[in-house]
Amino acid sequence: MENTLTNVEINEYLKSLGMKAQAAKTALQRLDTAQKNHALNRAADALVQESERILSANEKDYARAKENGMAEGLLDRLKLTDARIEAMAEGLRQIADLDDPVGEVMETFDRPNGLYIEKVRVPMGVIGIIYEARPNVTADAFGLCFKTGNAVILKGGRDAFYSNQAVTAVIGETMEKEGVDRNAIQLIENNDRAVTTAFMKLKEYVDVLIPRGGAGLIRSVVENSTIPVIETGTGNCHIYIDETADLAKAVPIVINAKTQRIGVCNACESLLVHEKIADKILPALGKALLEKQVEIRGDEAVRAQIPEAHAVTEEDYGTEYLDLILSVKTVSSLEEAVAHINKYNTGHSDAILTEDKAHAQKFLREVDSACVYVNASTRFTDGFEFGFGAEIGISTQKLHARGPMGLKELTSYKYQITGDGQVRP
Amino acid sequence: MENTLTNVEINEYLKSLGMKAQAAKTALQRLDTAQKNHALNRAADALVQESERILSANEKDYARAKENGMAEGLLDRLKLTDARIEAMAEGLRQIADLDDPVGEVMETFDRPNGLYIEKVRVPMGVIGIIYEARPNVTADAFGLCFKTGNAVILKGGRDAFYSNQAVTAVIGETMEKEGVDRNAIQLIENNDRAVTTAFMKLKEYVDVLIPRGGAGLIRSVVENSTIPVIETGTGNCHIYIDETADLAKAVPIVINAKTQRIGVCNACESLLVHEKIADKILPALGKALLEKQVEIRGDEAVRAQIPEAHAVTEEDYGTEYLDLILSVKTVSSLEEAVAHINKYNTGHSDAILTEDKAHAQKFLREVDSACVYVNASTRFTDGFEFGFGAEIGISTQKLHARGPMGLKELTSYKYQITGDGQVRP
Repeated sequence: MENTLTNVEINEYLKSLGMKAQAAKTALQRLDTAQKNHALNRAADALVQESERILSANEKDYARAKENGMAEGLLDRLKLTDARIEAMAEGLRQIADLDDPVGEVMETFDRPNGLYIEKVRVPMGVIGIIYEARPNVTADAFGLCFKTGNAVILKGGRDAFYSNQAVTAVIGETMEKEGVDRNAIQLIENNDRAVTTAFMKLKEYVDVLIPRGGAGLIRSVVENSTIPVIETGTGNCHIYIDETADLAKAVPIVINAKTQRIGVCNACESLLVHEKIADKILPALGKALLEKQVEIRGDEAVRAQIPEAHAVTEEDYGTEYLDLILSVKTVSSLEEAVAHINKYNTGHSDAILTEDKAHAQKFLREVDSACVYVNASTRFTDGFEFGFGAEIGISTQKLHARGPMGLKELTSYKYQITGDGQVRP
Repeated sequence: MENTLTNVEINEYLKSLGMKAQAAKTALQRLDTAQKNHALNRAADALVQESERILSANEKDYARAKENGMAEGLLDRLKLTDARIEAMAEGLRQIADLDDPVGEVMETFDRPNGLYIEKVRVPMGVIGIIYEARPNVTADAFGLCFKTGNAVILKGGRDAFYSNQAVTAVIGETMEKEGVDRNAIQLIENNDRAVTTAFMKLKEYVDVLIPRGGAGLIRSVVENSTIPVIETGTGNCHIYIDETADLAKAVPIVINAKTQRIGVCNACESLLVHEKIADKILPALGKALLEKQVEIRGDEAVRAQIPEAHAVTEEDYGTEYLDLILSVKTVSSLEEAVAHINKYNTGHSDAILTEDKAHAQKFLREVDSACVYVNASTRFTDGFEFGFGAEIGISTQKLHARGPMGLKELTSYKYQITGDGQVRP
């Protein structure tokens, strides 16, 4: 698994995966919804039935990671248990229960020359997913891609290698038993970095590449890939408390957005407060944040109200902490708040707290983010919270999909045009 | 314009364009439809009023290109005349008349927790367009981007440099007179290749990059860009004449698709014929093609019916000729035709000629192209022919937009979420 291959060998290896995925793509596009749902449910059953095999592979990963000194939090993400395998299976069953977006006629046009044009929702084809050391992503990514008729090629983190291999094998074997092309799911079984980089250039065989993980992984994919990428995940999310805010709502929303779960992309990392209400809101807010062990980094006006706050730097404003730290800045206007957010945010989620409709409208319109909130926590940016029933990630780019991505966002479309002999004059 | 800059100077230059585009982006998003349409019509008037200035700049380009030995066809594309400037102006007026897609509420969700979510169509922000030596693209690309509320940064071909500069100046000056940020349109005024490559990495300021031109330009953008790209243009388009085809429709459709205009991406480059009807269709088809000066490259069975045909090679099947050449192959089944097309096509446009509904359905479903036709010429793949009223290009990728791209395809969306204090449990 860590063999160093020559470039020719790497290309041969990836080409063979690509060709198998292309064949699987054609086979998957012939399945109807009932066939796909049946296979998903059978894969869920198999994960539970084969849980010992998966757990024993996971133990190998876990022991090695522990030996290598992996931090407790990461070890916990890596660890599988019966309950977690049951949750993976349940995830596949839930995906089976969702509506199938494939085949939807999105629009039709009757042209004056008699051509009839249908815009039809179709699978992407082959999806590549590069992710880190959470083995549950393996089943989840397969489920979402399979339901939308896509073949998937997975490159998981090396720390979860044996776990990913076991999950992929169980699902692939089930597909075969059910008469589905087992290459609907393939795992890159080589952790050489050169293989991953070459995978990002497998444009001839892969239609879209989705990185799921930290900022470093995503940057590497964006810089190296020639395959179209959907950029996900980094969230430097802001809350702006306007002078027109209902202060009773402000403390619960900020505490929720900052502390309900700290390591996630929709957590609040930066707070802006209108200077006119700084003395009214900051003492209570500071007290509540400090009780939750949040380190506050503020400008002078903030520190005047919260003596425990540290001095904030320019760098803080651009930092996604993913930790119990919050930068806090006072602003003199809504315009200043919008300009600050558009300068420092990552296009993920930003909120205004206001009781003034014109201020809310201006913020919704002018803040350039996937999800813009009025009087609610940024933590709601999530496929399940939006009612999509599934989520492959949160897109922070503007091309194709923006914000939470569910099943529809894993599809493309084609135009089907029917004529009776039309030629262009 | 051909100064060699240091990397630091290149980055400073592009950063200054990027920052001006970001400021223009915010200003453009505040314009309503009437303001945008008024400015487009004023820009159209100005192009005509300032036609002498544009023609004199174009003469400089033309003289230099001629001196450099540019081919006649390319010289013709470069040449501007009063009529062509009037056509550019008319293009802007037509864009003003189209519906504005920005602001459309695409979907709404009422969540059980009381959150109200609106999915709203918004501009992309800043669009980069890299193109070759057709100065009319300058006005056209500006018009499409401006109508959709986007700032545009243009990099035109060096051969049209002075023409592009004049068109950009006339439009920019008009914007300023009309109280619109003149940086709604900016031209990269340096033809150093290093500047173009660095522009492809201006991700912090540019939301999407669209190359318009030949295969070499598009490949270079795909390989170098870190900005999300919409790949356009290359079309290795097929027509498959099934054994169930109405032979009376076949000759006119093939002749139209091959010869009506040869240098365009939706022209037919390869023909497949079911072997059972080869002797019925090929003699007449060969005669008609030869009358139109088309060189036929065929397999043995084809050459048995058309003695004038040359031998076809594997390489021919993958070639977009953009010329009076057609590869022709016989196949033994619909399945073989579909597999051949999916192996060699570029995902652009492919057609089946058949009177059998099941064959048509199978072809529509299984051929993996943006536009799939039954009984019509591939030449209809075009934003105007589809009724979009405009076209920025034909996308051959599956992410974001596929097939002809009109105004909608230059937009993104955002989620606007309104609550009254909701926090995530």
